Amino acid sequence: MKTNEFMNLQTQWIVGFVDGEGCFHIAVNKSSSLRCGFQVLPEFTVTQHQDNIQVLYALKSSFRCGVVRVNHGDRFCYRVRGFHHLKEIIIPFFEKHKLLTKKRIDFEKFRTVVLMMQNQEHLTRDGVQKIREIQQTMNRKAKKLKIESSS
Amino acid sequence: MKTNEFMNLQTQWIVGFVDGEGCFHIAVNKSSSLRCGFQVLPEFTVTQHQDNIQVLYALKSSFRCGVVRVNHGDRFCYRVRGFHHLKEIIIPFFEKHKLLTKKRIDFEKFRTVVLMMQNQEHLTRDGVQKIREIQQTMNRKAKKLKIESSS
Repeated sequence: MKTNEFMNLQTQWIVGFVDGEGCFHIAVNKSSSLRCGFQVLPEFTVTQHQDNIQVLYALKSSFRCGVVRVNHGDRFCYRVRGFHHLKEIIIPFFEKHKLLTKKRIDFEKFRTVVLMMQNQEHLTRDGVQKIREIQQTMNRKAKKLKIESSS
Repeated sequence: MKTNEFMNLQTQWIVGFVDGEGCFHIAVNKSSSLRCGFQVLPEFTVTQHQDNIQVLYALKSSFRCGVVRVNHGDRFCYRVRGFHHLKEIIIPFFEKHKLLTKKRIDFEKFRTVVLMMQNQEHLTRDGVQKIREIQQTMNRKAKKLKIESSS
């Protein structure tokens, strides 16, 4: 399972595929080693059945960053966690080439959090609190919370 | 919920989005009114949460055929069932603009069935049998059958 060097992805194909299959995710994990008590981990992922692993390698090759890893079972993901790669490659790409679905709103929140991290805000209690509030509204969590609270 | 006239989809965005979210499906239903006993119904669909209904209308607008309908619950789909539209619009589009995931194999099987229908093969018992054999290998059914038969 190597990079498919013959699969050159076109920019708009990437945007369309990420509109369908991509995920901009912020994890906020407890951490006893950090003074604010939490670690903030942003990641961009695209998950596929192993049959389509070549497409994941082609994404890695196009963005020139990230890794392809097993996700669970027979599913694999292309994943970018490196802060520098998110800030300098992934975010500028989707700023320039706009997503067309509501995933664009998640991307914009994701960008906000990454910029807060650049300003070291994730190392303060207030900053983590703000990030958690943003996180709660991402990837349809807002709706689920709304439904749960009204039921 | 109207067509978003301002959302012009680029060709490669459509290919990428369909690589992620599209489905080429063949239904073979029992029919007492047809001499061969079965009706063959090919359809191309793209399903989304209602939040993204504008993208479905934009697909309809781009292809100039098909309908946007509720799928189930809060999910909607863009759907093309018209034989002429499948044969003259959808199939030529994806022949010209190749899908990059394994969905391309489903598309090629779908095209085979539509061409068989054009030759009236779906009105014979042999033709329906061949179409059912093709259908069994589409949309991961082949793998499920393999797993089931080996367990």
